[in-house]
Amino acid sequence: MYLDYAATTPVDPRVIKAMMPYYGQIFGNTMSLHQMGMKTAAAVEKVRKVVADFIGAQPEEIIFTGSATESNNMVLKGLAEAYPDKKKILISAIEHDCIVESTKWLSNKGYIVKKIPVDREGFVNLDFIKKEMDEDTLVVSVIHGNNEIGTIQDIGAIGKVCLEKGVYFHTDAAQSLGKVKIDVEKEMIDLLTGSSHKIYGPKGAAFLYVKKGIKITPLLHGGGHENGLRSSTVNAPAIVGMGKAIEIIKKSQDENQKIKKLRDKLIDGILKTIPDCFLNGSKDNRLVNNVNISFKRVEGEGMLLELDGYNISCSTGSACSSRMLEPSAVLLAIGLKAEEAHGSLRFSLGRWTTDEDIDYVLKVLPLVVNRFRKMSPFKN
Amino acid sequence: MYLDYAATTPVDPRVIKAMMPYYGQIFGNTMSLHQMGMKTAAAVEKVRKVVADFIGAQPEEIIFTGSATESNNMVLKGLAEAYPDKKKILISAIEHDCIVESTKWLSNKGYIVKKIPVDREGFVNLDFIKKEMDEDTLVVSVIHGNNEIGTIQDIGAIGKVCLEKGVYFHTDAAQSLGKVKIDVEKEMIDLLTGSSHKIYGPKGAAFLYVKKGIKITPLLHGGGHENGLRSSTVNAPAIVGMGKAIEIIKKSQDENQKIKKLRDKLIDGILKTIPDCFLNGSKDNRLVNNVNISFKRVEGEGMLLELDGYNISCSTGSACSSRMLEPSAVLLAIGLKAEEAHGSLRFSLGRWTTDEDIDYVLKVLPLVVNRFRKMSPFKN
Repeated sequence: MYLDYAATTPVDPRVIKAMMPYYGQIFGNTMSLHQMGMKTAAAVEKVRKVVADFIGAQPEEIIFTGSATESNNMVLKGLAEAYPDKKKILISAIEHDCIVESTKWLSNKGYIVKKIPVDREGFVNLDFIKKEMDEDTLVVSVIHGNNEIGTIQDIGAIGKVCLEKGVYFHTDAAQSLGKVKIDVEKEMIDLLTGSSHKIYGPKGAAFLYVKKGIKITPLLHGGGHENGLRSSTVNAPAIVGMGKAIEIIKKSQDENQKIKKLRDKLIDGILKTIPDCFLNGSKDNRLVNNVNISFKRVEGEGMLLELDGYNISCSTGSACSSRMLEPSAVLLAIGLKAEEAHGSLRFSLGRWTTDEDIDYVLKVLPLVVNRFRKMSPFKN
Repeated sequence: MYLDYAATTPVDPRVIKAMMPYYGQIFGNTMSLHQMGMKTAAAVEKVRKVVADFIGAQPEEIIFTGSATESNNMVLKGLAEAYPDKKKILISAIEHDCIVESTKWLSNKGYIVKKIPVDREGFVNLDFIKKEMDEDTLVVSVIHGNNEIGTIQDIGAIGKVCLEKGVYFHTDAAQSLGKVKIDVEKEMIDLLTGSSHKIYGPKGAAFLYVKKGIKITPLLHGGGHENGLRSSTVNAPAIVGMGKAIEIIKKSQDENQKIKKLRDKLIDGILKTIPDCFLNGSKDNRLVNNVNISFKRVEGEGMLLELDGYNISCSTGSACSSRMLEPSAVLLAIGLKAEEAHGSLRFSLGRWTTDEDIDYVLKVLPLVVNRFRKMSPFKN
């Protein structure tokens, strides 16, 4: 019972099938001049159009990378290098580690990094952005749909204030892509990160949308692939897989509605049957597959392992930081106390989650929470 | 008739089979704490041992990356940042673009980059290295087996002079891995780049060996994967594929001998039947699969396209630079004139190259060269 789709998704069998010919048959290097190379390059360019269409961009605005982490590193470090005079960066207080750590690296190089505070539901403070943006500001980076608490920002509103001030706006849409309609033009997004392995595509493929006219220095130097912006032999099978993953999503219009219903059944069921717990993140503007609940007087990691014994895979924070012992920075940023953050679980649903899965979790979880609370050193 | 194995290889069917379970069954995020994550992590750690054993290193000295380009960028930029006081870098004059461009980027930041000259066969000048190394020298980087001309350096000798001077020695072994026995300890290699898609493994997996005790700053910041040295969701299927590719090589001891015979048949056949052409690179210390020939009074790119019409896929320079119109920097470095460099073709053989393939090339190539020479503007 896999309920950790936000960490990574299995690859859809249709995606695997689409990738197969690119391993052994159409396997050329996209930079090669012969037919084998050209055929592979043509397949990659087809995907570039699919990705661009999916977010309302132009194909030449899409750079293929190896991961969302790489896209996010590239956008921050690449802009910093392309516009060396601008030394201030605004990021939300609930960014993924790869944004946080990239800005830490930049702050060691003299950059001023300001964290945009968020409210209890995780929405960024627009007034803070307006107030802090100045001529020295390089970029505002706000995560589209949060990986831990599921809150989907009012992206268009952030885009608007950035546009008005003439500051570039980047959003990490690794979790939102495929779950929320994205239109970079309407929402005034200048740069956007998307990933394949969160949408039933393979690992090893991701992209960065860079609006025409914006300069960016490459992170990977070399043979000049991706129009000189990202050198490295193009991972055609993975890119083809990402393209297929997007095409499947385009055709499964009602999938998100189905997942959302299961999500709400799980949220409502937990809140109704288990005392002293609460939902983190926004109830209304929430990723269709995200459930994040804090259980008072219990420790999330222990519960996670216990649930794993019941064959329920879930997570405490993001997968990346799940091996750390610190409380989730995202949960602290929305105002939770450390012990509340420690007592949180994230269930993330996906394409193959069933009604029966949710019933099973709703049967097992109260028992587990109850047992842990009895053993808890916290006062009841 | 694919004779461009140096650009990229098809994935071996056994490798594809080994990867399959990691797409849809054991697909967890290696950072997740549940069984699904742990199983995936265990598979990745198994490969780390396979890779380490293959080059005589320890598992904890292997960092998985997404490509050789990434490994090479990481090694140069990461060392530069970890040892900010050392401002001089030595690279050979026949490095791959990703080394060349990374050092260009560093030289824009004030680094002094010296190119180690090579002789007519492509061997680096050891005396130059000895003379140029000083206390300010960060690293010496010399390509193990050259991607264009196939020359295999005397790696142990370079390692020795670097060790004596206390300067780190890096070698890009993307082309050599699997074709030449590598022992990082014996050959005194401090850092080594290896890649999957040159050895019948998938694209999206590569590694960097970093000898214990050497500091390196990450290129990709984020969730702290790979012991904090390379953040990004670990591409387990691709890594498993790379591991399988290495295991296959270990078991096919005589494959390199078989390919070498075909290589020599092709070289000898061309030199015997076509007038006014010569072999580039070393005849004796040469990658088993590399054939690089300069044909006087013809233009390589035109011949490449003509051969493609005969279903023979080959290359002019490296795949990465094959879309540029400049003559190969590697061929110029070994002393060719620009027009000689322009008249060169690289044939690279591999696992599925047959005796019949070579016979066919030896039948077609003289006709093509002859026809091009008749049309040539050069005087005969």
